Amino acid sequence: MTAPWITYRPELKVLDCTIRDGGLINNHMFEDGFVKAVYETCVEAGIDYMEIGYKGGKKIFAPDQFGAWKFCDEDDIRRIVGGNETPLKLTAMADAGKSDWRTDILPKEQSVLDVIRVAFYVHQVAEAVDMIRDAHDKGYEVTANLMAVSRAQETEVDQVLELVAETPASTIVVVDSFGSLYAEQVEILVKKYLAYGKATGKEVGIHAHNNQQLAFANTIEAIIHGANRADGSMAGLGRGAGNCPMELLIGFLRNPKFKLRPIYQLLQDQLDPLRKTVEWGPFVQYNITGQLNQHPRSAMAARAGEEPGDYVKFYDKVITEE
Amino acid sequence: MTAPWITYRPELKVLDCTIRDGGLINNHMFEDGFVKAVYETCVEAGIDYMEIGYKGGKKIFAPDQFGAWKFCDEDDIRRIVGGNETPLKLTAMADAGKSDWRTDILPKEQSVLDVIRVAFYVHQVAEAVDMIRDAHDKGYEVTANLMAVSRAQETEVDQVLELVAETPASTIVVVDSFGSLYAEQVEILVKKYLAYGKATGKEVGIHAHNNQQLAFANTIEAIIHGANRADGSMAGLGRGAGNCPMELLIGFLRNPKFKLRPIYQLLQDQLDPLRKTVEWGPFVQYNITGQLNQHPRSAMAARAGEEPGDYVKFYDKVITEE
Repeated sequence: MTAPWITYRPELKVLDCTIRDGGLINNHMFEDGFVKAVYETCVEAGIDYMEIGYKGGKKIFAPDQFGAWKFCDEDDIRRIVGGNETPLKLTAMADAGKSDWRTDILPKEQSVLDVIRVAFYVHQVAEAVDMIRDAHDKGYEVTANLMAVSRAQETEVDQVLELVAETPASTIVVVDSFGSLYAEQVEILVKKYLAYGKATGKEVGIHAHNNQQLAFANTIEAIIHGANRADGSMAGLGRGAGNCPMELLIGFLRNPKFKLRPIYQLLQDQLDPLRKTVEWGPFVQYNITGQLNQHPRSAMAARAGEEPGDYVKFYDKVITEE
Repeated sequence: MTAPWITYRPELKVLDCTIRDGGLINNHMFEDGFVKAVYETCVEAGIDYMEIGYKGGKKIFAPDQFGAWKFCDEDDIRRIVGGNETPLKLTAMADAGKSDWRTDILPKEQSVLDVIRVAFYVHQVAEAVDMIRDAHDKGYEVTANLMAVSRAQETEVDQVLELVAETPASTIVVVDSFGSLYAEQVEILVKKYLAYGKATGKEVGIHAHNNQQLAFANTIEAIIHGANRADGSMAGLGRGAGNCPMELLIGFLRNPKFKLRPIYQLLQDQLDPLRKTVEWGPFVQYNITGQLNQHPRSAMAARAGEEPGDYVKFYDKVITEE
C-alpha cells in the first residue's frame, strides 16, 4: 500500500464511550436530553457501537449518589432508545469487583443491550473470565478490556491474554487508562493482542486517554497495526484528560458510511454547554501523570482544588512522591 | 532496541519557536518581559535553540503595524539577551519573498544570532538557495524549511531536496504548515529528507502544527525515524491551532539535560495569562482545515468572527467551497 491513509477497512468499527467514560466526571448524572442527543448523533454519524454506561452493583454503589448510567437498568436505557430499531449496537461496561453481574445482566432476549464489555485489572482475570462466559451464555457479544496495561508486567499481560484467548470474547481491547503509552508501545501491544487472539478469531480494540494529547494518534497507530475496534467520545469527553475525540477519529476514517456533520452539531449544541459545569481535557496536571504512568486521581484532585493553575506545585508534589 | 522510548540520542536537539510562530497571532507584539521570560526558560530548561522572530523586510511590512519580532533588529534582540552568554543558540527565520535578507541579515560577527532558518514554498526554491548561501557565507548555521509540504507534489519535493542537498544548509526541516499530516506520511517524508541529505551530512528536523492534535505525536514519529531536530513551543503557542507543546516534548525526551520545572513555571506565569488576550489551540475549525489539508486562514477568521461556536456553519462553508 502506497497511501493507506486514504483507504479504509470495512471491518473497522467505532465505539462511542461518551456517556460511559464521561460519566466518571459527573457521577453519571447526565440529563436524558443529553444522552438522547448522543444516541441520535451516533445513529446519524454511522457509528457502530454506543456504550451507554456501567452495570455497577447497587450493593457496591449507593444508587442515590449516582446517576442512572452507573447501573443501566433496562427501563432507563429504553427511556432513551426505545427498542433501538437502528443499526447502532448498544454496549454497557461491567467492572470486575464492582458489578453484581450474575443477577444484574439480564438474558439478552430481555435486554436492548447488544454487547457487554468486561473491564478488569490483571489480578482480576479469573473473575473476568467468569464474567465473559456468563455474558456470552446469556446471549451477548462480549469484549475483554484489560485496564491499565501500562502498569502491568509483561508476563502478567501474557498470562491474561492466554486465559482470555480461550474465552468466547470476540474482542480484546488495549486500554491505556493512564494516557501514558507512546506509539511504539501501542504497536507492541496491538501485535501481541492480535497474536494471542488469532487462533480463536478475536479482534483487537483500542481505548486511549488523552493525557499527553496522544489519544487520537495512538488510536491511529493501533489501527495501522491491525486494531479493528476503536473507541472515541464526543469532544473527547471522558475521565480527566478525556478520550480520543470522535470528531478527529471520524475525520480520519475514510469509510463513507461515517458522517461528521451530526457530530459537529452535537459538539455545539451539547458538549460546549457542558463545559460550563464540568471540565475535561489534556491540562498540564494530566500531562504530568501521563508522563509518569500514574493514575490521574492526583491530577483530578488538583484540577478540582484551589489552585488548578499552579503547575509547579503539583509537579513538585508528584515528583517528591515518586 | 527493545524499549527505545526510555533511551535518548545525544544528538537530538530542540528548538523553541514560541516567539517566532506565536508572533503570527498578535502581529509579533510581545512585551519585553514575556520574551525575556521565554528566553530565560529556554536556558534553564536546557533547550538548544530559541527562535526569536522573523527577519521581515521593512519595505514589505510597515514597521508601525508590527512588533519588533517581525524584524529582529540587532538592538531589539540584545535588549532581551544582552550578548547571550549561554549555551542557547538564537535563531531567526527569513521567509523567501518577504525579507530584505541581503541587507538585513548582518555578518555573523556583528550579530548575536547563531542560526538563520530559511522558509520557503516549493516555487521559491531558487531564492531559498540564494538565501541559504548568503547566510552561510555571512557565517551562520543555516536550515532549509520547506513549508506546506502536504500541498506539494512529490516530484516538486524531490526537486527541492535535490537543490537543497547541494547547499551548505545543515538541516532540512519537514514543515507541516497545515497540521494535516498523519504518522505514515511523516515517516515517508523524514526518510526521504534523510536520504537526500545523507551525502552532505544534513540533519532532518520536524515542525508540526496541532490542528488535529497530532503535533506532539508527529514529532515523536519524526524522531523515531531519525529526525534529530525538533521544534516545540511553550504551551503550543503558535498560529491557529499552535505547535508541538514544549512541555510534552521535553517530558518525552530522556536526555537528563532537559528540565521540565522551569517550563511549568513559565506556563503558569506567562502563557496562561496570555490566553486572556489571544487564542490558540486545536479548536474544531482547525480540526476541519487540517483534515482537508487547507491553510488555516478560514479557520482563524471563523475563530475571530461573530460565531466561533458554530462549527456546522463553518463545516458547511468549507465543504461547499472544496
